[in-house]
Amino acid sequence: MNNAMDVLITKIKEMNNPTVIGLDPRYDMLPNCIKEKYGTDVKSVCEGILEYNKDLIDATYDIIPAVKPQIAFYEMFGVDGINCFKETCKYAKEKGMIVIADVKRGDIGSTAAGYSNAYLGETPVGDKKESFFDIDFVTVNPYLGVDGIKPFIEDAKKYGKGIFILVKTSNPSSAELQDLRLESGETVYEKVAELVKTWGEELIGEKGYSSVGAVVGATHPTQLKDLRKLMPNTFFLIPGYGAQGGKAEDIALGFDKDGVGGIVNASRSLMCAYKSDLWKDEFGDERFAEATRAEAIRMRNELTLSIK
Amino acid sequence: MNNAMDVLITKIKEMNNPTVIGLDPRYDMLPNCIKEKYGTDVKSVCEGILEYNKDLIDATYDIIPAVKPQIAFYEMFGVDGINCFKETCKYAKEKGMIVIADVKRGDIGSTAAGYSNAYLGETPVGDKKESFFDIDFVTVNPYLGVDGIKPFIEDAKKYGKGIFILVKTSNPSSAELQDLRLESGETVYEKVAELVKTWGEELIGEKGYSSVGAVVGATHPTQLKDLRKLMPNTFFLIPGYGAQGGKAEDIALGFDKDGVGGIVNASRSLMCAYKSDLWKDEFGDERFAEATRAEAIRMRNELTLSIK
Repeated sequence: MNNAMDVLITKIKEMNNPTVIGLDPRYDMLPNCIKEKYGTDVKSVCEGILEYNKDLIDATYDIIPAVKPQIAFYEMFGVDGINCFKETCKYAKEKGMIVIADVKRGDIGSTAAGYSNAYLGETPVGDKKESFFDIDFVTVNPYLGVDGIKPFIEDAKKYGKGIFILVKTSNPSSAELQDLRLESGETVYEKVAELVKTWGEELIGEKGYSSVGAVVGATHPTQLKDLRKLMPNTFFLIPGYGAQGGKAEDIALGFDKDGVGGIVNASRSLMCAYKSDLWKDEFGDERFAEATRAEAIRMRNELTLSIK
Repeated sequence: MNNAMDVLITKIKEMNNPTVIGLDPRYDMLPNCIKEKYGTDVKSVCEGILEYNKDLIDATYDIIPAVKPQIAFYEMFGVDGINCFKETCKYAKEKGMIVIADVKRGDIGSTAAGYSNAYLGETPVGDKKESFFDIDFVTVNPYLGVDGIKPFIEDAKKYGKGIFILVKTSNPSSAELQDLRLESGETVYEKVAELVKTWGEELIGEKGYSSVGAVVGATHPTQLKDLRKLMPNTFFLIPGYGAQGGKAEDIALGFDKDGVGGIVNASRSLMCAYKSDLWKDEFGDERFAEATRAEAIRMRNELTLSIK
């Protein structure tokens, strides 16, 4: 069984691009050329979103190694949305992209096993087992402790998958709980980082990184730097680049001396490049996918310049 | 707009029963009389589960005020599972039960808004808004701080809904993160309790409890007692009764002097009463729903005896 993090790192190196494109669609993000083709009932809207996602995947799969759909933006459309999520993941995999489902699930053991079955493993159905989403990586919340993590780790081992556990998130109020100082002197997120490190020890691959990764926001450069030192075998999923304020030079602090160690998410800046000041005149609405590709190349070059 | 917690408390009082039935179905829990009617492909299995859920709702809706489907057990069946979850929630509402969806979502602000739209509020679709799950309460994870909570609170206000935020969960490893001692002397879960209290202040209803509730496990009686004192206006969703080891006399510690203040979840002990030593001889497989009703009455009597 392949180690999922080895596979991801290999793909990042081949493309020389530590970017993951976040697919977090909203109706108002769709270009008019797609909106015009579909109705405004939920089934049609989800078909439009799926076309949009596929076009963005087509425009980037040879230069971006991975895709990260945020499931909330599909769940909010109910059953049709979940179907759109599933088809998006399936299409990205067919195109050779690695799929990181941003689900941030976390629950007690037996329930976490249900989630893990859904996304990484297989669910017992009648007298057989079936894989419903077949995702490569999911994000997981650590608040319930190891009980809620173990089922994911077991499936990661069994099916060659991986997880990213929330350590230090990119949002402004992440400090409220995560930065609390413990009696022992460390912060809550540092303690979580230690736990993540321990939980991932048996899944370290040939490239030196565990399939149990960590989510660390680009909006906290000092913490990113400290955590890179604290967790030398933990790969980072780094949100918060672009719209949220994280800069390439900040992000570089999350990488090791060989320029490995993280993958940087961008959602809106890639998806809506066709609306951005930088690209709207050149591409406009009709050529939205080309605008995304142009922005992806710009972002790749910016990142690889900063990460030495 | 009604305050959701007032509505829940009124219903608990009317039925004199602080129980919520957890609907966490697995294929192997289905009685043979249902299994025999359906095939073993996923669509048929989900139809069988929906029938099971509906039968259990029919058998209890006049004596149990609320239902708590754990979404992991539906997500694990993919798109068909989510449809089954939706239909289960819809049916329970039609029967007058209050629906608490155990989703434990938690994310940064814009993403949390997506989840909140899905479950409590409405999602923009085309030029209108649509409610996809129309749930009364959801459970929420606090790890991301107030950004991830606010959208739910706003929808709770706007649509007369409510949330239960994880404070102290019922699982063995809950201590790993939640019981860590802070520099300030309190534990992480006590700090979360304070935050939950503050977040809920503007949503306190006529019955004295906020629509922003807390999840506190029955497996930690001392903490339950302390938290009742610390959070006099916070209603508790109490998992961990029965199979997980929580006893009625422990649970009583989570209630106020008027016998109000919490709702106790039981899943397996109610759903699979027909397999239990206590009821299997009397009811057996065919009369599984009657066994659930008998166990629901036994549990109600046990709880109301303990909670004075």
